[in-house]
Amino acid sequence: MAKDMTLLWGSGSPPCWRVQIALEEKNLQGYNQKLLSFEKMEHKSKEVMDMNPRGQLPAFKHKTYVLNESCAACIYLESQFKSQGNQLIPDCPAEQALMYQHTLESLTLNQKMADVIYYTWKVPEAERHDSAVKRNRETLSTELKLWEGYLQASGPFLAGKNFSLADVVVYPTIAYVFRFGLCEERYPKLAAYYNSLKSRPSIKTTWPPTWLETQGSDMLKDL
Amino acid sequence: MAKDMTLLWGSGSPPCWRVQIALEEKNLQGYNQKLLSFEKMEHKSKEVMDMNPRGQLPAFKHKTYVLNESCAACIYLESQFKSQGNQLIPDCPAEQALMYQHTLESLTLNQKMADVIYYTWKVPEAERHDSAVKRNRETLSTELKLWEGYLQASGPFLAGKNFSLADVVVYPTIAYVFRFGLCEERYPKLAAYYNSLKSRPSIKTTWPPTWLETQGSDMLKDL
Repeated sequence: MAKDMTLLWGSGSPPCWRVQIALEEKNLQGYNQKLLSFEKMEHKSKEVMDMNPRGQLPAFKHKTYVLNESCAACIYLESQFKSQGNQLIPDCPAEQALMYQHTLESLTLNQKMADVIYYTWKVPEAERHDSAVKRNRETLSTELKLWEGYLQASGPFLAGKNFSLADVVVYPTIAYVFRFGLCEERYPKLAAYYNSLKSRPSIKTTWPPTWLETQGSDMLKDL
Repeated sequence: MAKDMTLLWGSGSPPCWRVQIALEEKNLQGYNQKLLSFEKMEHKSKEVMDMNPRGQLPAFKHKTYVLNESCAACIYLESQFKSQGNQLIPDCPAEQALMYQHTLESLTLNQKMADVIYYTWKVPEAERHDSAVKRNRETLSTELKLWEGYLQASGPFLAGKNFSLADVVVYPTIAYVFRFGLCEERYPKLAAYYNSLKSRPSIKTTWPPTWLETQGSDMLKDL
């Protein structure tokens, strides 16, 4: 029982979901957790700010060690609990290189996704431009095609034949773009990857609770 | 001699510089390298695109394993050459947690820096707003104060008493903001960190060659 760990999280947030999946994969159940509401601005509460001064979720702690950056938390958990649960960092140098490359470059995918999905939330009305919206969408489409190609080249998982840290980190973002209406026919490898991993225990158990209750959006359907 | 490694890089680019520092720290000299010019758009050349389809530098390869994402390359090098050169991932869990946290959250610092320094380069003229410039500068200032606080709390290095991967990854960005005129008096811990590490062999050897020949800018002097 991971009683010396605390996770403050928000439903549907890819960075939060990554940490939840990593904890499941490492058999670290029973940690202290609290589901907070972005709508109610609970990510700006004192409880979060004390752990994460940027006022973002996740806010994660093992003992007194704070790890708010989700990839950092996942790599740390694998490093500290290497022999427990599923091994997430491959021993084989070729697979390990691919795993680190995809894990870290997923932050680029995340950024490009956020530039599209959160545009009206992040950019004040007076600074919005249709030309920027169009460019951001094209940039995201190009990026997603790159990942479609990665799965074509390796597969079934991102670093090859074994589930790894790259999948822990990237899967929530892939699920997010489909939640926002990405067309399964136009991105068949990403769609197959998304659907096949839905039933993996670490992912199924941590599926965003709000997604089970509400409809997604069709924002990305023409991408 | 690291003859099975190739690095295509650009002078002054923090992501490129990180990989160069990591290679020095791990005693991996003698790798194949090529200095390319951003001004001449050489980062969009076929040679780069073949290794890095986003057309960005660095483009780094060990044997046939491509690692373009700079943090991924640094973590991989430490993992593969653990017992060679300087140890960059601390054994102590507390230091390791701090190291991973700072290493990964530095991508946030880098993004906020890029939003200010590359604004006119990244945003088409018709989409520029003084309000966005002002907000981006305030955001960067807040972020830099966070890092000033980190060094106040730990020090002399980012993860405590030992030089680590966090320093490899973050130092080039800190050097970059001072190159762009950040006021040493207003950020005394960052300035002391910047100045004290200038003479570290891995950093001195890899100092951006263009920086030795040309003046920096004063873009950040009022930040």
